[in-house]
Amino acid sequence: MSDENRRPRLAITLGDPNGIGPEVTLKCLRDPSLRAQVQPIVMGSAHVLQQHARALGYGGLTLHAVTPGEPLPENGLAMLDVLPDETPPVDFGRVTADGGRLAMRAVEAATDACIDGWADAMVTAPLSKDAIARAGARFPGHTEYIAERTGAASHAMMMVAGTLRVGLVTAHIPIAEVPSQVTKSAIVEKLGVIHASMQRDFGIAEPTIAVLGLNPHAGDGGVIGREEEQVIAPAMEAARSDGMRVVGPLPADGFFATGLDSGYDAVLAMYHDQGLAPFKALAFDRGVNFTAGLPIVRTSPDHGTAYNIAGQGGANEGSMRSAIELAVEIAARRAVETMKR
Amino acid sequence: MSDENRRPRLAITLGDPNGIGPEVTLKCLRDPSLRAQVQPIVMGSAHVLQQHARALGYGGLTLHAVTPGEPLPENGLAMLDVLPDETPPVDFGRVTADGGRLAMRAVEAATDACIDGWADAMVTAPLSKDAIARAGARFPGHTEYIAERTGAASHAMMMVAGTLRVGLVTAHIPIAEVPSQVTKSAIVEKLGVIHASMQRDFGIAEPTIAVLGLNPHAGDGGVIGREEEQVIAPAMEAARSDGMRVVGPLPADGFFATGLDSGYDAVLAMYHDQGLAPFKALAFDRGVNFTAGLPIVRTSPDHGTAYNIAGQGGANEGSMRSAIELAVEIAARRAVETMKR
Repeated sequence: MSDENRRPRLAITLGDPNGIGPEVTLKCLRDPSLRAQVQPIVMGSAHVLQQHARALGYGGLTLHAVTPGEPLPENGLAMLDVLPDETPPVDFGRVTADGGRLAMRAVEAATDACIDGWADAMVTAPLSKDAIARAGARFPGHTEYIAERTGAASHAMMMVAGTLRVGLVTAHIPIAEVPSQVTKSAIVEKLGVIHASMQRDFGIAEPTIAVLGLNPHAGDGGVIGREEEQVIAPAMEAARSDGMRVVGPLPADGFFATGLDSGYDAVLAMYHDQGLAPFKALAFDRGVNFTAGLPIVRTSPDHGTAYNIAGQGGANEGSMRSAIELAVEIAARRAVETMKR
Repeated sequence: MSDENRRPRLAITLGDPNGIGPEVTLKCLRDPSLRAQVQPIVMGSAHVLQQHARALGYGGLTLHAVTPGEPLPENGLAMLDVLPDETPPVDFGRVTADGGRLAMRAVEAATDACIDGWADAMVTAPLSKDAIARAGARFPGHTEYIAERTGAASHAMMMVAGTLRVGLVTAHIPIAEVPSQVTKSAIVEKLGVIHASMQRDFGIAEPTIAVLGLNPHAGDGGVIGREEEQVIAPAMEAARSDGMRVVGPLPADGFFATGLDSGYDAVLAMYHDQGLAPFKALAFDRGVNFTAGLPIVRTSPDHGTAYNIAGQGGANEGSMRSAIELAVEIAARRAVETMKR
């Protein structure tokens, strides 16, 4: 952002056309207080968005078609139609290859926009991993695609709700593979990514990161597994040598018993359900998925396509709103840091 | 209970003398509304309890010494001193073999009391697994001891907070052993124990039990592991053949996003942190550990000895109170069922 006072430009992808992505996006963008903070560029199919607006009873939308790089209209909603020559149908709740193709096109456009500087950050509404696979995507999801496009050496999936920030060492792998993937180098790498992100993205000069154990009760002194002593503690020692503040390994169940305010700046969980099950228990409808370590800023809501409630108007936009607000906050902080240099 | 109107007799063990067990017990028993529901028999060392009372500023307690089988005093606090000839010191926060020995003696006495019918149920304040091991205990904890003493063929650890009831297939084992221990027979066994407990202990005639997946996103259709298809689904089919209502396998993170009221009567988690981390996130300071499937009724608070805050007066007795209330409720329900027969 060249001008400190202008609102951040946010590329918002609509996600799968048959899920709740367009609905939660529309609900957020109808809120004047949110619009006052951000210049949105909606990316997806205008035809799809209009169908969702009608299903929600909002009537026809006035969209301002824009092309990459062009200045945004002062008023009205900027829309980058990634399939301008098509009129994709909406079929609520269905997994389709066409839906997957549309969703990925929007992600590609948003990534381009961030790389080129047209957008300051991107917020991605949920897509279906199944649908994009049917459309021939080479990537399991957003994160891997964006990481490759931006050449990010390492990154970490984080869930954020207020001061509760949960990072993961491993994510979408079977439990049987977790122990072998929780290596010293993986832990050190994720700690480095999270530490840097706390400083750069959250403005915390000297963050303290809690590290969970792999096993129940963090191994209970070796009685319930030895990875805490043999893998996690040495990784933490290495991180300390690099100047990081880390505490643990701590039992996961006790850690989350303190609720949303753990007293730490971030926590590193060893695997998906260990971090996300308690996170969503504490923060559903307001949690944000943030990919730390990328050169561009990307957030998303912490829910999926929710096919079962798509098109009915009942989707809660709280998490999408939080995702937009966090993207704005991080983009603004990075812009200030860039200007300082 | 021979008389439906009398208050249930509750054996309450004080747990480790150097932890918060005596403190949370005393705090509960000073509450007249709780005392109106229950006839407590405190089990442990009278000398230890007096030391805790002084540390809390309660002054000297008036305790009525009782021996197993004898009628309880109408007023005052009944105390079964399991070390009547000793004056064990209290050393707040220290793990000691003497503390472990005392804690186990109380559990033995409470188990005897329940087996003999002197007590209707038992509530166990936290002990230290480390301390009882130092004292030569052959059992890792309460549950295993009580199960062997009562000859229980199978049992299941459950965490209870209102209508949120979380059972576990595996508990205190390393994550690396979880996949091989999550077998079809183990799942069917635990579902049977939980189903029967919902009927007998919670009065739910036709319970519906949610079953979580083992892997993230419950395997996402086989993309993140196949145990859901190969192990959990067949186990659920077997349970259905036995007349049980089961739903799943469901992703753990989404399940707990619904909060304390999931809409199911119980949920079966595959391993410790998957169930307990979100449970404690939702229900800390009110959660109860209940061992389903035992012939006697046993509950405990969901926290440990909390050595770091022992003797300071700051321990929250909410979970102990919930444990007492749940023991009373289950004992009363079982008594009514027994009389109906």
